[in-house]
Amino acid sequence: MIDFQTSPDQYHHWKLAFDGAVARLTMDVQEDETLADGYKLKLNSYDLGVDIELADAIQRIRFEHPEVRAVVITSLKPRIFCAGANIYMLGTSSHAFKVNFCKFTNETRCAIEDDSRHSGRRYIAALNGTASGGGYELAIACDEIYLVDDGNSAVSLPEVPLLGVLPGTGGLTRLVDKRKIRRDRADVFSTLAEGLKGKRAKEWGLIDDTFATSKFQESIDARVQQAASLLNPGQAGSPRYEGIKLNPLEVETTADSRNYKYVSVKLHREKRYANLTVQAPESDLPTSSDEIQKLGDSYWPLRAFRELDDALLYLRVNEPEIGLVCLRTKGDIDKVLAVDKSLTANRDHWLVREIILYMARGLRRLDLTAKSFFSIIEPGSCFAGSLLELALSSDRVYMLNNPDEHIELAVSDLNSGALPMSNGLTRLQSRFLSQPEKVEEVLAHEGRFDTEAAEEAGLVTFAPDDLDWTDEIRLAIEERTSLSPDALTGMEASLRFAGPETMDTKIYGRLTAWQNWIFQRPNAVGEHGALTNYGKPTQAQFDYKRT
Amino acid sequence: MIDFQTSPDQYHHWKLAFDGAVARLTMDVQEDETLADGYKLKLNSYDLGVDIELADAIQRIRFEHPEVRAVVITSLKPRIFCAGANIYMLGTSSHAFKVNFCKFTNETRCAIEDDSRHSGRRYIAALNGTASGGGYELAIACDEIYLVDDGNSAVSLPEVPLLGVLPGTGGLTRLVDKRKIRRDRADVFSTLAEGLKGKRAKEWGLIDDTFATSKFQESIDARVQQAASLLNPGQAGSPRYEGIKLNPLEVETTADSRNYKYVSVKLHREKRYANLTVQAPESDLPTSSDEIQKLGDSYWPLRAFRELDDALLYLRVNEPEIGLVCLRTKGDIDKVLAVDKSLTANRDHWLVREIILYMARGLRRLDLTAKSFFSIIEPGSCFAGSLLELALSSDRVYMLNNPDEHIELAVSDLNSGALPMSNGLTRLQSRFLSQPEKVEEVLAHEGRFDTEAAEEAGLVTFAPDDLDWTDEIRLAIEERTSLSPDALTGMEASLRFAGPETMDTKIYGRLTAWQNWIFQRPNAVGEHGALTNYGKPTQAQFDYKRT
Repeated sequence: MIDFQTSPDQYHHWKLAFDGAVARLTMDVQEDETLADGYKLKLNSYDLGVDIELADAIQRIRFEHPEVRAVVITSLKPRIFCAGANIYMLGTSSHAFKVNFCKFTNETRCAIEDDSRHSGRRYIAALNGTASGGGYELAIACDEIYLVDDGNSAVSLPEVPLLGVLPGTGGLTRLVDKRKIRRDRADVFSTLAEGLKGKRAKEWGLIDDTFATSKFQESIDARVQQAASLLNPGQAGSPRYEGIKLNPLEVETTADSRNYKYVSVKLHREKRYANLTVQAPESDLPTSSDEIQKLGDSYWPLRAFRELDDALLYLRVNEPEIGLVCLRTKGDIDKVLAVDKSLTANRDHWLVREIILYMARGLRRLDLTAKSFFSIIEPGSCFAGSLLELALSSDRVYMLNNPDEHIELAVSDLNSGALPMSNGLTRLQSRFLSQPEKVEEVLAHEGRFDTEAAEEAGLVTFAPDDLDWTDEIRLAIEERTSLSPDALTGMEASLRFAGPETMDTKIYGRLTAWQNWIFQRPNAVGEHGALTNYGKPTQAQFDYKRT
Repeated sequence: MIDFQTSPDQYHHWKLAFDGAVARLTMDVQEDETLADGYKLKLNSYDLGVDIELADAIQRIRFEHPEVRAVVITSLKPRIFCAGANIYMLGTSSHAFKVNFCKFTNETRCAIEDDSRHSGRRYIAALNGTASGGGYELAIACDEIYLVDDGNSAVSLPEVPLLGVLPGTGGLTRLVDKRKIRRDRADVFSTLAEGLKGKRAKEWGLIDDTFATSKFQESIDARVQQAASLLNPGQAGSPRYEGIKLNPLEVETTADSRNYKYVSVKLHREKRYANLTVQAPESDLPTSSDEIQKLGDSYWPLRAFRELDDALLYLRVNEPEIGLVCLRTKGDIDKVLAVDKSLTANRDHWLVREIILYMARGLRRLDLTAKSFFSIIEPGSCFAGSLLELALSSDRVYMLNNPDEHIELAVSDLNSGALPMSNGLTRLQSRFLSQPEKVEEVLAHEGRFDTEAAEEAGLVTFAPDDLDWTDEIRLAIEERTSLSPDALTGMEASLRFAGPETMDTKIYGRLTAWQNWIFQRPNAVGEHGALTNYGKPTQAQFDYKRT
């Protein structure tokens, strides 16, 4: 089982150090500390384990060190920044694992960009040596890239020429959409195995500057100090920047369940689905930012969404045959709405802002998970505000229609923009693309939605009555889990993100799909494929038919 | 060899009839008139041959019948509109053919939408029976969809539940992005093999209305008459609507070449590349709309771009191993610029407008072709205005740097918006995303660009001098054609369309890529795959791992 929880004292591959407003994240991959057998992580190449640590480090900077204003990412290895994803790891991994691995590394890069965009921390890639493939993709996720000019070091995306696949972590999209490199230059760069060194890399916009070896450290330091002297948005409103501690999540597991404090997962492996239940807070929670800060990581929204995130990652990677997740909620709608109200009231406080941004990332992780989601709304459920987003993220929503029971939905201020999808829209906006006025109607609705009102408002797919409920849910689950898992993945990716596209949706929708296709092709993974033959004395042989 | 040229007197599967401002396009597929052996086109199902006729019919309506304001698409078969792409044809086709087939049908649907958007013709799908799969995808490309209410007929996208693949002609994207169907309803519809009948289909927005069998014909007629009574944009400015005749293109072929009047293709199959040369007009051409109308399909821009389009389609489908096309031009820049000037001056005339729109579609076909394009600019070339777009469409531009020769580029008004890419931008805007001011600079440039000026302006990737030229071009060709063809396809699809996305780019970029992936998977095409087992007594067996 792959565990996504870690902490700095457990890191093998990264060193995380703090000096006032500067965090220094240094890559020093231990080649034998791999997540699986059969490969060595040479030259700061990485596997999923390395990226799990990086993802953890970025969350910790945000929650534990809000005083940080600049993050330097560099390497401890001489003359090499990072060689990217380990090729032998890719060569020995299943297709599904490769795809999930690329998705997670993309999400980590997006988390860097999210921190930069919304919390104003400046990420600086200090390339003390060559950055190739995923190494350059990590750099290009940062705000600024500086490359040492030592006559040798280069940036490169050698996947196409060397491996016959695409850069798997958003590299091509970020080239033309983030750094806006001219398309013909991006073409040359992406087919040049050796990449480009400082001068031309700067001229083409692939890096921001290049410094001679002797000046490299001092130039980086100067730039970092300058970046660290700028205020983050929101810091002005938060006189205290003491971080909170992210403690390990407690989870009890059995053969077919995974129980956190507020989130529980029950696996029905033989039927290929799982129930995932989120529980509301048990009692009234404090409402002031001081008290919230004191609660730290035990504050319900942070804890519940950390658990949700961990559960989703667990399901993605460790339970590939679970094709459908039934989302359920349990508890008091008023308590959920009260939390949303506190979050909204204190949204300018650094911690509350980080919590809301974290919830948004977790929900986007859900949108991007290659499993079907059905929300099941029954008596005792609490799909309200932040938890209503679970229903709005779902491919379908089933809500019991029984006037004798209290079965209700509710909106909060958090449904109106704080938790955007990757396409930049709220989930309500995505849902009502054809009737934008419905978004305002739903948000302005007084009080709860009972089943009839929810159906009328367009929030529910099906509302069977008591007589049909059990059979209809059972049948829906059976039908869904009988369909081709590949077709469902492609269908869901196409239907979930209507409307505008952003760099993120282009990475997940367009680039990922091409990557998936190429990762399946004999030209990459067949006996004579480029990925199969990498590093062997044999050479790749292609079927040159263009598709 | 698959020939993309046809004309109404050669149609097997469609009847095209005109009655004043109404065109009636009636599908009556002849089941034995297939493009290949091994399948029968039952129930108005189609293969590429059927769609080639449809594409031809739409062009002819535009050029030969500008008086038409409403187009009805219906079927001659009782109780069936169209069953979509023929499954047995798909099951027996190569992966590359399936992908090219889907791309062409998508382009035909986009041509319908282009006619509706830019020439104001109203397309009305009169579903006199069930429209499933590609049948519904054809309907959804129309402006309005009406379904007979006979207790039986339905619309459906049964690909996911029945075949384990995605609708291949833009269906999913058009569901949520064009008709803006609510995502959960789109999910239900796309997993429901039997689809939805009139009442619910209308309620969910899948059709615009449903009429009882007895009222169907008269209701359609009434709607069509209403649509036909509205003026097309531009008609007000064109007192005469006489169409022009699209005569067959003349093409001389040898074993390794294909020579039209203005376009020639020379194949270097052993080296996996082709030279495609477009020739400028030989002499000065008339400049008034009356004279242009008299020239008809022999007018240079229409003829040259019809030839270019045919050449591209030929290369796509008949020369799969040609991975690289070197684009060249030959002739007098002034003559090309003079034509552009006439086109711009007469752009409100219906024929000139159609010619410009046709050129734009041809260039988009180039952008969407899964082959590499290098523009090669040498003495005697004429990459100016409309032909400059060829260079701007290319993955790379090589321009000889020899001050002793006249080697020049030039812009015209046609570079500033008349020939947009699928993403809605001009090719100059796409090229200079990071420096939008460069677009204006290039457009405002006085006179020609010599090689130095072109390089300075950012129009050229490499400008080798005379000494290096031959070797550099040879090496560039050799290198390009040695790379994995799949990786190149995915890379080019990712780099060519930076910036905004439209429904079209979503269909070609996102949906096509997912479709390509799924079309390769054992769950679809393996021994136990759904596509392989369709119509057989055996049932599909899936590997249920979600990816």
